[in-house]
Amino acid sequence: MPGRHTSPSNARVMRIVDVRERSVPISRYNDPSLPSGALTTSIVALTTDVVRAGKPVVGYGFSSVGRYAQGGLIRERFAPRLLAAAGTDLANDAGTNLDPFRAWSVMLKGEKPGGHGERCVAVGTLDMAIWDAAAKIAGVPLYRFIADVAGGGRTPDATIAAYAGGGYPYPSDDLARLCDEVRAMLAQGFTHVKIKIGAGPLERDVERIEAVQALLAAPNHLAADAMNAYDAERCLAAAKALRNHHLWWFEDICDPLDFETQAAAVDVYHGAIAAGEALFSAAEAKLLDRYGGLRPAKDILLFDPVHTYGLPGYLRIIQTMEDGGWPRSAFWPHGGHLFCVHVVSALGLGGCEVNPFSFAPFGGLADGMMPQDGRIAPPQAPGIGFETKTDLHALFALLAREEVVR
Amino acid sequence: MPGRHTSPSNARVMRIVDVRERSVPISRYNDPSLPSGALTTSIVALTTDVVRAGKPVVGYGFSSVGRYAQGGLIRERFAPRLLAAAGTDLANDAGTNLDPFRAWSVMLKGEKPGGHGERCVAVGTLDMAIWDAAAKIAGVPLYRFIADVAGGGRTPDATIAAYAGGGYPYPSDDLARLCDEVRAMLAQGFTHVKIKIGAGPLERDVERIEAVQALLAAPNHLAADAMNAYDAERCLAAAKALRNHHLWWFEDICDPLDFETQAAAVDVYHGAIAAGEALFSAAEAKLLDRYGGLRPAKDILLFDPVHTYGLPGYLRIIQTMEDGGWPRSAFWPHGGHLFCVHVVSALGLGGCEVNPFSFAPFGGLADGMMPQDGRIAPPQAPGIGFETKTDLHALFALLAREEVVR
Repeated sequence: MPGRHTSPSNARVMRIVDVRERSVPISRYNDPSLPSGALTTSIVALTTDVVRAGKPVVGYGFSSVGRYAQGGLIRERFAPRLLAAAGTDLANDAGTNLDPFRAWSVMLKGEKPGGHGERCVAVGTLDMAIWDAAAKIAGVPLYRFIADVAGGGRTPDATIAAYAGGGYPYPSDDLARLCDEVRAMLAQGFTHVKIKIGAGPLERDVERIEAVQALLAAPNHLAADAMNAYDAERCLAAAKALRNHHLWWFEDICDPLDFETQAAAVDVYHGAIAAGEALFSAAEAKLLDRYGGLRPAKDILLFDPVHTYGLPGYLRIIQTMEDGGWPRSAFWPHGGHLFCVHVVSALGLGGCEVNPFSFAPFGGLADGMMPQDGRIAPPQAPGIGFETKTDLHALFALLAREEVVR
Repeated sequence: MPGRHTSPSNARVMRIVDVRERSVPISRYNDPSLPSGALTTSIVALTTDVVRAGKPVVGYGFSSVGRYAQGGLIRERFAPRLLAAAGTDLANDAGTNLDPFRAWSVMLKGEKPGGHGERCVAVGTLDMAIWDAAAKIAGVPLYRFIADVAGGGRTPDATIAAYAGGGYPYPSDDLARLCDEVRAMLAQGFTHVKIKIGAGPLERDVERIEAVQALLAAPNHLAADAMNAYDAERCLAAAKALRNHHLWWFEDICDPLDFETQAAAVDVYHGAIAAGEALFSAAEAKLLDRYGGLRPAKDILLFDPVHTYGLPGYLRIIQTMEDGGWPRSAFWPHGGHLFCVHVVSALGLGGCEVNPFSFAPFGGLADGMMPQDGRIAPPQAPGIGFETKTDLHALFALLAREEVVR
């Protein structure tokens, strides 16, 4: 049908008419009294001139967690490019909906090679809102929209594997509070858990791991995330100390670009290593594959579909790693939020992180949704379905100055 | 003298009292009618409570050129950390001057590993202003201050080698205007020149190189910068096409993280390769050294002392590359401005870029200063000496709301 791809010269082409952003504080803890390092994330509301149910369609996005808000770059560099674009630079050939890949090219016009930090988060934040708006305009849940335009026709997974992430160090009563948190995760229906290590001495890391493993059905239901905190010496010491603990995986074990140390640790550690959360481009992914010492049949890839310049960048990373022999089941994207749930379902990835108690209101699932035997389903509302999560929708709706209907 | 390092508990400790920033447009061309890709840079004015000549000392910095302004990150993340810091977190033990290394640690507190883009430029911008203020408080030109605190006691070089950078493609009359620009560089006293290639077909690159080489004393007085524009195939084709042109060096020949392509090109190209302008951290520098195929005895390192999280980050890169066997003479920092002149003089690096016609008013030398046989001297005014460059000082002074005295 060649006519489908011809730009309709007389037809109206949809546009983005407004982008709003705000920085909001987030916390690693459920307890608001605990300090959490002044963490922030950006929320954006991207308004189109497409009307559904009598109102302009608004797409929502945020900066995932872990790399700070990006208000400056969004306001000063990337939102203006979207707002200045017109016609099929942003829209599909029919002019009826956003083309997220075209919008991505608009945002990255003039950007130079190298320097994959911060801007990749800013672009990913807007990209999330673009996908949300596009799926809403199409009237389908995002997993369906992604499967249609980027999934190569595959059938999305109705449910996906998910684990509960959290377990940050508590300033007091650490082990007791950690165990309380993990018990609450299990009570929600999660079977697999990830906790943080690396902030204190190695003996403390081992204590935390052993305390949590005692609560789980099997030791290999626990992953441990060292948050890139170990230097080379501590990384190798930890790899030796933990190699008989049968972890599900051992994550972010050294500086994300210190492939030499990582490869050396892989050599002494028996189990699965997880990496990639702090790498943001296909160029870096290729270096990880080539020099990081990882094993496609065993190891785990954590790239965040927001932080990697959004989903189009993430798809390039998947392609890069598949070229290197990695299976899609190796991808367990960082983020712990609803956007990733759709991405995993649509692309057939290994599974998804959920942050049931951290980074509220961005973590956790839709209202009333609980894991069943460690599996979850994406929301069925059009778009990402932030509207199905009351606390988060209230935040976005305030930004978009919509009326909140509860 | 142990007393020197004791914090004086009753003495007043100097502080940073104000940071102002603004984004300003910059152009690759002398001709304001030519479009230049909406390039921007940030200028900052950092006011201390130290008084010299009856006025508070103000340090000036800017974001070098090539990676966009960073107003958002400066305002939202890094300037607030400096303004919130107190005592010897920022100042030397005596409390009398800024300690740029301590200020650097304040700015980077809580920043995560990986993601070396944008924030490295924001931090470098403020870092430049910190060094300017610190040298002004010390009452010495910056090259002397750097040599004292970071030069290991070496004597700064009174003059340094410098070349003229520019030669961006002109939208019309390209070869004629390029040759005019190079003739004007030679008339200023430069002997060595760098031009841009990579924007058009390879035949065009060869034409530009041959046209300029015909104007120079020798073919190897010309370097050519492909601006990371070539993909793998074009990079290898260019390496073959240019290997008999006897360039001074061939620069940024592919994606800055595509070490595989770069190493393959090194194998087929006979002369010097220059790299590092688009790498911003010691972690990336180590990867370049290990996997980039470069030869310390022959090749050139372009890291920008602003874009690499400022001078403290640049010093870590120098250390990393020296550990890999690289001589200081291999460092020819990107930037083309007065800050680099001081850095090269103080640290004994290979030489310096100057942008006589590009990126006004940031390029070029101090008023009335001309190269002598391709060598230049740093300004003798306290600090960087932006005050010796009237057009640039006017811009900074407006920001600081000082009175401009001409």
